[in-house]
Amino acid sequence: MASTVQPDPKFMRMAIDLATENVRSGKGGPFGAVVVRNGEVIAAAANSVTSTNDPTAHAEVNAIRAACRNIESFQLDECDVYTSCEPCPMCLAALYWSRCRTIFYGNTKSDAAAAGFDDSFLYDEVKRPIEERRIPFQQVLGDEAIESFDVWKQSSERIDY
Amino acid sequence: MASTVQPDPKFMRMAIDLATENVRSGKGGPFGAVVVRNGEVIAAAANSVTSTNDPTAHAEVNAIRAACRNIESFQLDECDVYTSCEPCPMCLAALYWSRCRTIFYGNTKSDAAAAGFDDSFLYDEVKRPIEERRIPFQQVLGDEAIESFDVWKQSSERIDY
Repeated sequence: MASTVQPDPKFMRMAIDLATENVRSGKGGPFGAVVVRNGEVIAAAANSVTSTNDPTAHAEVNAIRAACRNIESFQLDECDVYTSCEPCPMCLAALYWSRCRTIFYGNTKSDAAAAGFDDSFLYDEVKRPIEERRIPFQQVLGDEAIESFDVWKQSSERIDY
Repeated sequence: MASTVQPDPKFMRMAIDLATENVRSGKGGPFGAVVVRNGEVIAAAANSVTSTNDPTAHAEVNAIRAACRNIESFQLDECDVYTSCEPCPMCLAALYWSRCRTIFYGNTKSDAAAAGFDDSFLYDEVKRPIEERRIPFQQVLGDEAIESFDVWKQSSERIDY
């Protein structure tokens, strides 16, 4: 979908600077992300996978988590995310779950692949049927697992998200 | 790919119990996950999106993060993950980034959709070209962003992941 929000290059430069500085400081991969609401930065983060032993600590995930902590909400309505690179499928889906408004990116997933990152491979894997994926998948106890959804559907206390 | 690892149903029951108990306690969605290495549970977690204001706090992401903290590594080699529901694209990609060995799941993404979760929708979105996605995407400053990858490629200090 075309964006109706005009990007502000200064926020992308901030994301790119975070990415570059992150490599120079040895804290992680060349990725940075900034979350903006009403023209104001509410979170900025770089990738910290290797320095925090967390494979989910990509720049976008770190920025989403920080932004949500900051505004005390599990949704980023009306927020725009500037990321120095097109999100991998993990970050893309995280951005959807955050319900942010617009995603601005610098590098593409092809640029990322050329720098040695798995993003393109992951996009291919996500598209594949389970039985053709590189990591083996197997369903176990489907008949018992459904109970947790039944309890959810009947719950009067549940908070939808 | 077919699994060469035999699942142990007791770990799936643990994941399902976490999911069901999570709804009953009001802490989050009906999802639980357990990480197993050498027949031992190294992490177990439920979804905590709404109780921790973190849209990335799905059961699998929480379990991956806890397991990595536990073993002080950013990779879960030789680990099998039992999740009460087929992972959403965020969790699927997080599992790939963790390099775990096998993924066992209880409910399917269709079961999840029937319970009101966006997993199927997200799989469709990830497959779409950027310009057809529901959230607007736009490239900004691609010519400047590439610098962070150049610095990465030239870095002698980098830790690949």
